[in-house]
Amino acid sequence: MKALVYHGPGERSWQDVPKPRIQAATDAIVRVDAVTICGTDLHILKGDVPTVGPGRVLGHEAVGTVVEAGPGSDRKPGDRVLVSCITACGRCRYCRTGSFGQCLGGGGWILGHRIDGVQAEYVRVPYADTSTHLVPEGVSDEHVLMLADILPTSYEVGVLNGRVAPGDTVVVVGAGPIGLAAVSAARLFSPGRIIAVDLAESRLEAATRFGADTVIKDDPLQRVADLTAGLGADVAIEAVGVPETFELCTRLVRPGGHVANIGVHGKPATLHLEDLWIRNLTITTGLVDTYSTPTLLSMIAAGRIDASPFITHRFAMEEMEKAYEVFSAPQETGALKVVLTRA
Amino acid sequence: MKALVYHGPGERSWQDVPKPRIQAATDAIVRVDAVTICGTDLHILKGDVPTVGPGRVLGHEAVGTVVEAGPGSDRKPGDRVLVSCITACGRCRYCRTGSFGQCLGGGGWILGHRIDGVQAEYVRVPYADTSTHLVPEGVSDEHVLMLADILPTSYEVGVLNGRVAPGDTVVVVGAGPIGLAAVSAARLFSPGRIIAVDLAESRLEAATRFGADTVIKDDPLQRVADLTAGLGADVAIEAVGVPETFELCTRLVRPGGHVANIGVHGKPATLHLEDLWIRNLTITTGLVDTYSTPTLLSMIAAGRIDASPFITHRFAMEEMEKAYEVFSAPQETGALKVVLTRA
Repeated sequence: MKALVYHGPGERSWQDVPKPRIQAATDAIVRVDAVTICGTDLHILKGDVPTVGPGRVLGHEAVGTVVEAGPGSDRKPGDRVLVSCITACGRCRYCRTGSFGQCLGGGGWILGHRIDGVQAEYVRVPYADTSTHLVPEGVSDEHVLMLADILPTSYEVGVLNGRVAPGDTVVVVGAGPIGLAAVSAARLFSPGRIIAVDLAESRLEAATRFGADTVIKDDPLQRVADLTAGLGADVAIEAVGVPETFELCTRLVRPGGHVANIGVHGKPATLHLEDLWIRNLTITTGLVDTYSTPTLLSMIAAGRIDASPFITHRFAMEEMEKAYEVFSAPQETGALKVVLTRA
Repeated sequence: MKALVYHGPGERSWQDVPKPRIQAATDAIVRVDAVTICGTDLHILKGDVPTVGPGRVLGHEAVGTVVEAGPGSDRKPGDRVLVSCITACGRCRYCRTGSFGQCLGGGGWILGHRIDGVQAEYVRVPYADTSTHLVPEGVSDEHVLMLADILPTSYEVGVLNGRVAPGDTVVVVGAGPIGLAAVSAARLFSPGRIIAVDLAESRLEAATRFGADTVIKDDPLQRVADLTAGLGADVAIEAVGVPETFELCTRLVRPGGHVANIGVHGKPATLHLEDLWIRNLTITTGLVDTYSTPTLLSMIAAGRIDASPFITHRFAMEEMEKAYEVFSAPQETGALKVVLTRA
C-alpha cells in the first residue's frame, strides 16, 4: 500500500510500505476513507518533535472503514469509524479519569508519532474500541474528520482549559485551523468579545468569518489594552507554538486571567515571573484528551456545529505530496484544512 | 515615632519618622501592638521588588488598636484589628469578585510597598473597613498576626490554587514560614502524602513537625519519582522565589498536575514548553486576595488551626534591627516567624 513516510527533518515521501496487520487482540485494521494533515505534522517535519523517527508514517486524523478486528475488539468489518488522534487503553489511571491523552497503557498521541499513522491506505489502530468512534448515519466523512483533532483540541485545550465564560474578552493568538476552531468553540460560551491576532491578512479574514469580533495584525498589546480599558483580556489562547506568541499571551491577559496553550512547542519560553508572580495568572498546557469527542460528534450530527468552513481544499489520497505543499503555504494558498479521500 | 525605613538594596534603619495622619475619609490610624517580618521584606531588601523606593516604611503584617478613624469609616478608637497585607477599596471590579489583591481602587498589596507599612509605632490604613478585620475576644495578638499574610497566602495561593485534593501527593518546595504554612494548610484537604523539599536540615525538621510525611534534601526529582511509581506529584507548591525552584516544580508534577507558585520572584524563569506542552500542566501565580481570612480567623478562634508553632522568636518593637538579623539568618537562628510587640 501507499503511505506518507517521514525521513527526517524536511524529508517526506508518498511511497510503498507494508500493509499493517493485527498485532494485538484489541487492534483493528481500518481502511482510510478520508484523511487530513495537521499543523503538528509540519512541526514534525521541522524537527520540533524528536520522538518521531525516520521511517514513520505520519498522520493522526482519519475517517475510515474497519476491515479486520482482533478477537478482543467489538468492532466489526464494515463499521464506519472516526480514528481519533488519541489512542486510549481505557484501563489505566489516566484513562479511567478521562485523561486519555496521558494514557499509560501505551496510548496517548501515538498514531503518526510513536507508531505508524493514518496518512496511508490502511492503518492499525490499537485499542480500537476506545480509540475509534462509530460514525452516525447522515454525517459526512469530511465533517467527522474535523473531530479527529482540531475541534476537540481547540475546545478542550483552548476553551475549556482557558475557562472561557460569558462576557469574557478572549484573545486567540494564531488564526490557523486550530486558532479558528478556538474562535468558533469560544462562541459556545457567549464571550463578550473575541479578538484574533495573526500576521497574515488572509487568516484574519478567515477569523472574521469564523466569528472573531476584532482582528489585530500589529501591536496587539496596545490594541488589546485599548479595547479593555487598559486591563487586558480575560483569556488568551496560544495557537501558534513559538516562544514569542506564548510570551505575548502572558502579557495580553489581565490580572487573574487565563493563558491556555494549545501550540506544539519545540523550544523553551521565558516566563517573566518577576512581573507575573503577583498577577494571579493561570497557565495551562495540554494535549487533547478527546473526552469531548462524543459530545461534539452529537452536536455536528444535530447541526449545532458546522465543520464545513474549515475545509478549503480537497484531493485524492494519491495527491498527498501536493496536499502537503498546499497546506504548508497557507499565505499563498489560503489553506485551512485539506481533505484527502480514497478514490 | 519610630519605624523601619528602607534606604535601597541592603540598607534599612529603625529611625524617627513623622507620625501618620488621616488623609482620606475611609482611613484609620492604627497603633501597632504586634508586628512581624515577612520573607517578602527580605526580597525587597535584596532589591527584588523595584516598586519599593528608598524612604519607604516596610511591613505588611500587624495587629493593633484603632486610635483614629476618618468620617467615612465605621472603625472606632479602641477597636482591636488585624491589619491585612491586602488593602481593598471594596468597590472596584476586582474587589467585588473577591480578588482584593488586584484592587483597582489604589489597594492591593500597598502597605510597606507603595505606601508606608506597619513596622512602625503607628500606621495609616486606607479603606480601613475593608482592609482590617475585627479581632474576636480570646484570641491572642500573635496568633491573629499569622493571618495578616502567611496563613491566607499559603492557603489561597498554594493549596487552593494548587487544587490539593484528598489522596494527592503534594510537594512543597521551600520549608520557610510560607512553605511550612502550606504544609499545614494542605493537611486540611487530607492529601495522601506531603513531601517537603529544602536545603536546610533545620527547616526539614520543622517541616516534619508541621506535618510533612517525607522530607527531601538531595535529588528531589529522583526521590519524588521513586515515591510516585515514576509518575510525579499531583501538586507542587513553590515557596522560595528563584527560577531554579520554579523550574524544579514544573518537573516534579505528573502529567495533569498543578504547580502553584507562591514565591516572590525577581528574575524570569525558563518554561520548558518543548516538554510541557503535552503534559497537561496547570501553573498558577498569585498574590493573596485574603478572601479566606474571615474563615481562617474563625478556625483559629475555634482552635481548629494552631498558629503558635510558627512563632520562634519574640522581641520588643524597638529591637526591630535585631529581629531582622535573626529572621535573615534562619539557618543559624532557626527563625520562622518573629513577633515584635509594643512595650
